Amino acid sequence: MEKISDGSYVVIIYRDRKYLKKVKKGDLFSGKGGNIPYDEIIGRDFGIKYGEYLIFKPTIEDVVMLGIKRETQIVYPKDGFYICMKLNLKNGSKLLEIGTGSGALTLLFSRACGPNGKVVSLEKEERHYKNAKRNLETYCELKNVALILGDVTNCREKEFDACFVDVREPWSLMQYVRESLKPSGIFGTIIPTTNQISDTLKGLQDGFGDIEVMEILLRKYKTLPERVRPFDRMVAHTGYLVFARKVKE
Amino acid sequence: MEKISDGSYVVIIYRDRKYLKKVKKGDLFSGKGGNIPYDEIIGRDFGIKYGEYLIFKPTIEDVVMLGIKRETQIVYPKDGFYICMKLNLKNGSKLLEIGTGSGALTLLFSRACGPNGKVVSLEKEERHYKNAKRNLETYCELKNVALILGDVTNCREKEFDACFVDVREPWSLMQYVRESLKPSGIFGTIIPTTNQISDTLKGLQDGFGDIEVMEILLRKYKTLPERVRPFDRMVAHTGYLVFARKVKE
Amino acid sequence: MEKISDGSYVVIIYRDRKYLKKVKKGDLFSGKGGNIPYDEIIGRDFGIKYGEYLIFKPTIEDVVMLGIKRETQIVYPKDGFYICMKLNLKNGSKLLEIGTGSGALTLLFSRACGPNGKVVSLEKEERHYKNAKRNLETYCELKNVALILGDVTNCREKEFDACFVDVREPWSLMQYVRESLKPSGIFGTIIPTTNQISDTLKGLQDGFGDIEVMEILLRKYKTLPERVRPFDRMVAHTGYLVFARKVKE
Amino acid sequence: MEKISDGSYVVIIYRDRKYLKKVKKGDLFSGKGGNIPYDEIIGRDFGIKYGEYLIFKPTIEDVVMLGIKRETQIVYPKDGFYICMKLNLKNGSKLLEIGTGSGALTLLFSRACGPNGKVVSLEKEERHYKNAKRNLETYCELKNVALILGDVTNCREKEFDACFVDVREPWSLMQYVRESLKPSGIFGTIIPTTNQISDTLKGLQDGFGDIEVMEILLRKYKTLPERVRPFDRMVAHTGYLVFARKVKE
Repeated sequence: MEKISDGSYVVIIYRDRKYLKKVKKGDLFSGKGGNIPYDEIIGRDFGIKYGEYLIFKPTIEDVVMLGIKRETQIVYPKDGFYICMKLNLKNGSKLLEIGTGSGALTLLFSRACGPNGKVVSLEKEERHYKNAKRNLETYCELKNVALILGDVTNCREKEFDACFVDVREPWSLMQYVRESLKPSGIFGTIIPTTNQISDTLKGLQDGFGDIEVMEILLRKYKTLPERVRPFDRMVAHTGYLVFARKVKE
Repeated sequence: MEKISDGSYVVIIYRDRKYLKKVKKGDLFSGKGGNIPYDEIIGRDFGIKYGEYLIFKPTIEDVVMLGIKRETQIVYPKDGFYICMKLNLKNGSKLLEIGTGSGALTLLFSRACGPNGKVVSLEKEERHYKNAKRNLETYCELKNVALILGDVTNCREKEFDACFVDVREPWSLMQYVRESLKPSGIFGTIIPTTNQISDTLKGLQDGFGDIEVMEILLRKYKTLPERVRPFDRMVAHTGYLVFARKVKE
Repeated sequence: MEKISDGSYVVIIYRDRKYLKKVKKGDLFSGKGGNIPYDEIIGRDFGIKYGEYLIFKPTIEDVVMLGIKRETQIVYPKDGFYICMKLNLKNGSKLLEIGTGSGALTLLFSRACGPNGKVVSLEKEERHYKNAKRNLETYCELKNVALILGDVTNCREKEFDACFVDVREPWSLMQYVRESLKPSGIFGTIIPTTNQISDTLKGLQDGFGDIEVMEILLRKYKTLPERVRPFDRMVAHTGYLVFARKVKE
Repeated sequence: MEKISDGSYVVIIYRDRKYLKKVKKGDLFSGKGGNIPYDEIIGRDFGIKYGEYLIFKPTIEDVVMLGIKRETQIVYPKDGFYICMKLNLKNGSKLLEIGTGSGALTLLFSRACGPNGKVVSLEKEERHYKNAKRNLETYCELKNVALILGDVTNCREKEFDACFVDVREPWSLMQYVRESLKPSGIFGTIIPTTNQISDTLKGLQDGFGDIEVMEILLRKYKTLPERVRPFDRMVAHTGYLVFARKVKE
């Protein structure tokens, strides 16, 4: 069974704080609950207590929320996983992502497309491209992502199963998106404003069907069994999601 | 490229109605928008118009919502995909599901665990077991599911990466769940009432950490660009989700 | 103490069904739970059991939801009472309503403005005007409503404390609304689409301040103490509310 | 028409900040947008600009949110106004409030019960009683509130139209509440946890009908017409509301 080793990533939890850290021989973690000399946990199982700390093996949600370096607004896991489903991703899927951003969603796409799938991701800002590249090199489990510095003119590949667009004006790319998709291929986007919903819907009027618009709300509850109740505050809005499927004219 | 063929499943959409159908040579589909003789679409691409109908290749959401025969309340895709993320499933994961029900979630688990993963699913009601078996035989893409007629005494396998429980009293199984999980392994459940949240939280007080309770709300919008607005009514509740990670004592 | 009498309105509840009825000597109520001959309840208190029925004195919510005849989409109580607060209505307030509709909100406004207040309500469709008039004659408690058949050209009164607009294009009336309000007077509207939010906000750019946009969601729960949970479905959308206060230029 | 005068309360708005202040001759307001010497606004209308500031006449919501001194968790206006409706309050209503807290809800009750109504409000903590008394003396418009230092043994009055309970264990008072209400009188409470919903529902099993449980969610939107979208975060929970009507046994 897998043990904590030099170079492992761990999630360290202290009360309601979480940290994602890389274990390093000879080094230590220092937080509100005191120190954890890494040498004392190397060789032990994940899923242990250390003083008041809990130490777990990171999940992909931990990586997205705590690990990746953000230079852009990221797509949150609550949306990211719903997107993967709506795009019908599975092992072997071939996906085009336009707008890599910090690569948070790219990580989820990579996992969802599996070892036999492929993710082509375009990012036109060099700074974001470099940051996303580092994030993927650090955290991506699979070698199925082709990260491209450039815009849609830099990818002539076609026959994608799905295409996800995370740019300000997705409607400006609909012609390209249609041509890149297989018949019955799925388009998706995330946009923060209702004005963008209108514009995206207008962009989908030709050559797409089964259009859907929705938002996902995540409401978290406190965990005292005698006092079950939602947290006082919540994230009220991340973005609206729009999906459609390509129809052959 | 894949074409519609005899035996293909198709999603047929007419305005706001959707049907999942198996194409059969010589047969026809009959709906509000008229007939579709299957012979006329065999050999054509997915993603086409036929009269007022649209015909697409089914997604896993289509299969769960329209395809599987339901003998129990199913876990909806909005929850199902969030569950897959929280359980950190990926190609190669080994998952235990207690309470197969109609197998809707099992389909998602199978896809999420990928060709190198494994899903062991227990169902103690013979009627549900048989129905789930049929659903999986019809719709499951991978051969990675072991469906077992029986309760937890019928599975002595251990070292699961994650365990999802969909029974009325998940708290009664926590000892078993803990023993079945790897260290740092993840437990999840879905329960309809707040009383069950309390009981589940009590059941998690020993040997688990990073406990979380939440619900996922999906709000759909109409798709007229000039009149963007939510639908009048929505599903207000499916279930509360509880997750925790195993801690070694 | 007030008793049920000939001519009283009563709310009759049978399981999850509610009826608003006018008690009539010699007549009877007939429902799923059997008959209630009115003579048997005349002279008794409100708040009684009759067989499996419960009989209560109607609230204003009962009247709005069950009593008034609807020829238009009504403003629901969850929104109506929030509107009364945001318009800062109290005994003595003078309110202008543009778009009486079926008069549901007018009933609430009448109550909120109290015996010393005044509600002027404009409705330009004769059919709606007549229906609203009947609803108010039947259910309005106070004589503080002036219902006018006509549009804004038919009301030259000014110095209103607040103005509520329930028409399709509230932004087309903003000049008139401003002139009708006292300084610091409050404008409100309810609109179903996000496109209308944009247009209303544009209409408020001159001469208004403290602009707010919001929606109110009401989520109901089942009432079994051992199985506390929301109802399966809910009203997901009635309308967006916009409020602003007049600023003197 | 009413003008700003020495001793007036005003709401001062600077971008997204709001202040409730009492105007005082010779004094000044100092904030992020600079100073407002009160002498320069005394004698002017409400609803004016002063530099980048907007100055309005306060609403009851302003008073509750910005004015009253809080020594307890207050009931927010979104809930408060819905409560007034569910309790069917109108000019002339006689209401019992158990648990005055800081008096926020008492202010709303006072207004809703009008000049011919009456609010009896009980508070057993002397500190809270004194604070609520000050808040009411400062902000209450009507002389219809009797504030009592004590618990339910200190109020022998009966025949209330409605009773609102805001204490930790409302179920412990149900016998008293029933006796205090008129037939068909309405009970209400606000409670933060689902465990309390269960207990309250158990307390209502005898002598009450038409039981309802719900929560009110308020979602606010940004006000740029070209970028309509909800705010990023919202209040996710204040309390659950329970209402019931007294049934004569």
